[in-house]
Amino acid sequence: MVRVKLIGAGGYGGIGLVELLHRHPEAELAALVDVQGVGSRLSEMWPYLEGTCDRVIVAPDSSEARDAEADISVFATPDGTAQAGAAAEVEAGRKIIDYSGDFRFDSTELYSEYARRIERDPQHRATKLLEQSVYGLTELHREAIKRARVVGNPGCFAMSCICGLAPAVKHGLVEPEGVICDCKTGVSGAGKKPAPGFHYPERYENASAYRLSGHQHVMEIERELSELAGQPLRVTFTPQVVPLVRGILSTLYGRLAPGATQSTVLEAYREMYRDEPFIAVKTPSDPVGTSDVRGSNRLVVTVACDERTGTFRVVSHVDNLIKGQAGSALQNLNVMSGLAETLGLQQPGAHP
Amino acid sequence: MVRVKLIGAGGYGGIGLVELLHRHPEAELAALVDVQGVGSRLSEMWPYLEGTCDRVIVAPDSSEARDAEADISVFATPDGTAQAGAAAEVEAGRKIIDYSGDFRFDSTELYSEYARRIERDPQHRATKLLEQSVYGLTELHREAIKRARVVGNPGCFAMSCICGLAPAVKHGLVEPEGVICDCKTGVSGAGKKPAPGFHYPERYENASAYRLSGHQHVMEIERELSELAGQPLRVTFTPQVVPLVRGILSTLYGRLAPGATQSTVLEAYREMYRDEPFIAVKTPSDPVGTSDVRGSNRLVVTVACDERTGTFRVVSHVDNLIKGQAGSALQNLNVMSGLAETLGLQQPGAHP
Amino acid sequence: MVRVKLIGAGGYGGIGLVELLHRHPEAELAALVDVQGVGSRLSEMWPYLEGTCDRVIVAPDSSEARDAEADISVFATPDGTAQAGAAAEVEAGRKIIDYSGDFRFDSTELYSEYARRIERDPQHRATKLLEQSVYGLTELHREAIKRARVVGNPGCFAMSCICGLAPAVKHGLVEPEGVICDCKTGVSGAGKKPAPGFHYPERYENASAYRLSGHQHVMEIERELSELAGQPLRVTFTPQVVPLVRGILSTLYGRLAPGATQSTVLEAYREMYRDEPFIAVKTPSDPVGTSDVRGSNRLVVTVACDERTGTFRVVSHVDNLIKGQAGSALQNLNVMSGLAETLGLQQPGAHP
Amino acid sequence: MVRVKLIGAGGYGGIGLVELLHRHPEAELAALVDVQGVGSRLSEMWPYLEGTCDRVIVAPDSSEARDAEADISVFATPDGTAQAGAAAEVEAGRKIIDYSGDFRFDSTELYSEYARRIERDPQHRATKLLEQSVYGLTELHREAIKRARVVGNPGCFAMSCICGLAPAVKHGLVEPEGVICDCKTGVSGAGKKPAPGFHYPERYENASAYRLSGHQHVMEIERELSELAGQPLRVTFTPQVVPLVRGILSTLYGRLAPGATQSTVLEAYREMYRDEPFIAVKTPSDPVGTSDVRGSNRLVVTVACDERTGTFRVVSHVDNLIKGQAGSALQNLNVMSGLAETLGLQQPGAHP
Repeated sequence: MVRVKLIGAGGYGGIGLVELLHRHPEAELAALVDVQGVGSRLSEMWPYLEGTCDRVIVAPDSSEARDAEADISVFATPDGTAQAGAAAEVEAGRKIIDYSGDFRFDSTELYSEYARRIERDPQHRATKLLEQSVYGLTELHREAIKRARVVGNPGCFAMSCICGLAPAVKHGLVEPEGVICDCKTGVSGAGKKPAPGFHYPERYENASAYRLSGHQHVMEIERELSELAGQPLRVTFTPQVVPLVRGILSTLYGRLAPGATQSTVLEAYREMYRDEPFIAVKTPSDPVGTSDVRGSNRLVVTVACDERTGTFRVVSHVDNLIKGQAGSALQNLNVMSGLAETLGLQQPGAHP
Repeated sequence: MVRVKLIGAGGYGGIGLVELLHRHPEAELAALVDVQGVGSRLSEMWPYLEGTCDRVIVAPDSSEARDAEADISVFATPDGTAQAGAAAEVEAGRKIIDYSGDFRFDSTELYSEYARRIERDPQHRATKLLEQSVYGLTELHREAIKRARVVGNPGCFAMSCICGLAPAVKHGLVEPEGVICDCKTGVSGAGKKPAPGFHYPERYENASAYRLSGHQHVMEIERELSELAGQPLRVTFTPQVVPLVRGILSTLYGRLAPGATQSTVLEAYREMYRDEPFIAVKTPSDPVGTSDVRGSNRLVVTVACDERTGTFRVVSHVDNLIKGQAGSALQNLNVMSGLAETLGLQQPGAHP
Repeated sequence: MVRVKLIGAGGYGGIGLVELLHRHPEAELAALVDVQGVGSRLSEMWPYLEGTCDRVIVAPDSSEARDAEADISVFATPDGTAQAGAAAEVEAGRKIIDYSGDFRFDSTELYSEYARRIERDPQHRATKLLEQSVYGLTELHREAIKRARVVGNPGCFAMSCICGLAPAVKHGLVEPEGVICDCKTGVSGAGKKPAPGFHYPERYENASAYRLSGHQHVMEIERELSELAGQPLRVTFTPQVVPLVRGILSTLYGRLAPGATQSTVLEAYREMYRDEPFIAVKTPSDPVGTSDVRGSNRLVVTVACDERTGTFRVVSHVDNLIKGQAGSALQNLNVMSGLAETLGLQQPGAHP
Repeated sequence: MVRVKLIGAGGYGGIGLVELLHRHPEAELAALVDVQGVGSRLSEMWPYLEGTCDRVIVAPDSSEARDAEADISVFATPDGTAQAGAAAEVEAGRKIIDYSGDFRFDSTELYSEYARRIERDPQHRATKLLEQSVYGLTELHREAIKRARVVGNPGCFAMSCICGLAPAVKHGLVEPEGVICDCKTGVSGAGKKPAPGFHYPERYENASAYRLSGHQHVMEIERELSELAGQPLRVTFTPQVVPLVRGILSTLYGRLAPGATQSTVLEAYREMYRDEPFIAVKTPSDPVGTSDVRGSNRLVVTVACDERTGTFRVVSHVDNLIKGQAGSALQNLNVMSGLAETLGLQQPGAHP
């Protein structure tokens, strides 16, 4: 039984993992850590968890947190928390999975650039661990994740874009210049903290673009795609919020490389994702929407190139809180722990 | 392993049971029957089930349906279907659970009255089975359900009202005259068939009462409550639709009987539901909403009498598709099959 | 031209009046006052008003506010503001309409009781004006409003309940004991300030009751109905939030008085509201929902008594931000200014 | 007073025009024509219009329709209706505005291609009127519309894309190859007819792309942009549905032409739209969403080029039912009738 110390238990990312672990046959919670709600049961903060998780939340610096008998620590916390606490976890013999951007870049240079974009201290606080860290996109880095001590879980937008572009980029079917990621996300991506833009009366019946002058997720996307392309690749990224709670719909564009067609692109996607348990490849004749991945760890890509205009186009569908966050973390946890990768993750969601 | 023949597999009630059985350790699907989609996989009709349920739908009169190796047949079908097909199922040695009103009344007289209300043939087509049938509100009829061949699953509105009123009625804490059920339901209760009133632009931002001159669910409620009261009891029932997809919020009113107070009522609810795995009792100081039961088999009742005006008041929260339908059916299936009642039903839902 | 000084311009209640005045042929804004956004245009705070209202917001204590050339001051502000500022407005020769509870009770005793319920100072700060104030439910107090200096606009819940009960109470068609107001409101009723319960992911797919141990609106309802009944009358009031933005659906219950029937009740409603330009009376055979009053100053009541159980029942539909707030204020403004009561208020809303 | 015969009165496009005309000081309804609801009042079909429009619907072939004293006929009807009825309207001395694609192309060749795309008879039924028809994008064809007998109102998607691209295309700031229109629409764009994909439980929490192999609106966009560019221009068009009721968010991409920058593009937009009463130009520092245009005839474009990647990007916001349909029709009606273009159209919408 793999024992999990969950830090940041009370946010959407934390409770998402609590839900998944509840059904996992070979992993279980060893400690719930948070700065809010210390001393109360998680189910007092979230009544829907009554009977499912009535464990008490402990403070990060409590002995219960420090001495938790856990094999792995999951940081479901904002940027900055994991890098501050990682050393102690590793010292206590625990592996680490972090939801934030703290361990998504294995070089201090890249990290500094990222940190500046989100207006944080560019000096990473655990540089040695950073350099050993592995980017947790399981489908691309499975082998490295198996051996990793520290895994930086992908951003939800980045997950949807990278999986939606990888086969085309890897096989040179899309021109490296001019790639566009037009991404629409549900509101849960912004977390549980109320803000004017997520106030119910302001957000219903509203679709809007934001951070048009630059979003931090673009760096992960470019790093991964450049590696696959074997050459630097830049993307234009447009984050947009639509009145969904769960779900990301990313429409990905580029120019078809000479010789590339809908059918060669489709073939490349089918080939690369043939054995992936959580990725499905579709064509325009298969109707699909974000509701088809809501509540599950699946990612569905629809290959829909427009040969008339020479445009590469793929639509990527994902539940931002599962494959885009907690599900992906659990997938990594399974891989890091030597468990079957799909354990605890083969649920269909609930419809409607 | 209990083997289930599911009739009406492609409706919301059918796929709800498919989702639950997918996680059930000791029950499994033996056949998917429907009149729509015959010959195609269930996951073609419902792409979110890809990988979860790719079984092919068979026609009701096919040999695959007739000869299915199943222990129990669940009719997730509209009024009229189960009574027509029940005899053959029983002959084939299968027990029956029916979602519709076909087996909610164990007398032909009561059934005829019900049938007239919904403008159907008052002559039941399987009167012998009707007379043996048991009303499937597990919490009230557990022992009879254990021995039943045919169980009529409660209506979702009725479930929320009966559980919300039972302790008070049983103990004479509410006057038998003047009970009011003010019920608000999400749209999924109306099924998957499009209609003008459920067209997205017409239903968003709309709350409305309907069937103000009489709703068929009232009969189940009155029958069960009269039995508990030991005297005839009538209720006023107001069905209303609000822009939820899943969820029923029933606010139940009456006059406090002489001597009854918030605290004696609360005590009666706590006492009666103490050992019920799926019912929780709350007070006005515990904030709760339908989102706290969404996706789970839980029913939460908040006891909130208004002593100033002598008014009995309880608020009942339930997911109409789970405890109000498929979950309740599975709970009965467990009981009828000698399995632990909670098997496959202890899931928390997904939040947000 | 009637000139309006609007205090609290930037809240939902303020911009609602700005929208209405924009179309009013004989009234216009003279000053926009608020504590937020001082010095910027209202359309900077609310971009949808660009071109409609680009006037600059001024501070309450500025000379622009003090010396505004206005005939009437509308306080679209929370409890406490109007009573503090009223004297100065009256001194400057302006009449007053207040949205809050500050002037809904014309006695210091009643006000003190109200203030205690909402945990505010029970000592009113403008007692003399309080005693002269008129309750702004136009349909009931039209003549007094014509002559009033200070009008306390009704609460939105209260508006829907009082208009839904008045004819029955006045004519003794409902028993004075046991009246129940089961009210469901959209989220905009809580204003523009973000809070955890109104965070989009928490509020979508959620219906919940709140303040079950007592809501302040009940006092207005009881005062008005007692006056109509000619005897003390108490009501049980259940406020509930459903995922609407605009709209209140109030279902009102009681016991039919001896001799009262659906048809005598219906007749009384038709009679009392025959000449009311903003109230329509319906029966269960006319389908109606809150979307039929959204965006308009209409209030629709459906008379639907349940003779089988002897229950009086009326369903009241209103847009909480228009007839429940800004529209009602403008209706009073018209009456106080000697204008036609319907000026600027005959708009149908936008559908869908 | 301009008198309007409205054909297709009962659809969303029809009632949208009824709402606008209700407030118009110099235009009024002369006849309501539809094939549904003949003989009943429009307010029986749409109760929210009670008191606003209680006129009776007449059949297309009735004498009331034929002999209506009207100056202009608006066809708020699907493809095929206007071309069949246009000759009779013109003969009766009425000008024509059509919402459908029947008169968006002034050549039979282009029309045939369009008709084939939507699987209709490629033979136009009023070729002479077709050849005289004018494309009703007022901002681009104001002078021709003044003199037109027949105006084909733009499609809502096309409106948002053409206005969002026109200045850049006209001034050669975007490369003519590789233009992409990523469009998200609310559900009302599909009309009032229920369908499985617009059933409330299926559409809430769902974002999806559709018709990925070709949408008919692309032809209007390419025709208009090619004219502006002075050379053939092709676009890739991705229609997507998100859970809005009203609103289109179109994100438009291309490659910046040599020398073009965010600031030169912004300047071109400000210049071209400076005097347009209904178009506003914004930059990424002005937060804007579809809720800022909901209910109004405004179109807001945000210029947000990504110089880092050489990508032209503009986000276009419009209410599909107003500027995208009925509002735009009324704008043309004003122009065709010699009225001030903004009459009846300067309303701000309702917020929230």
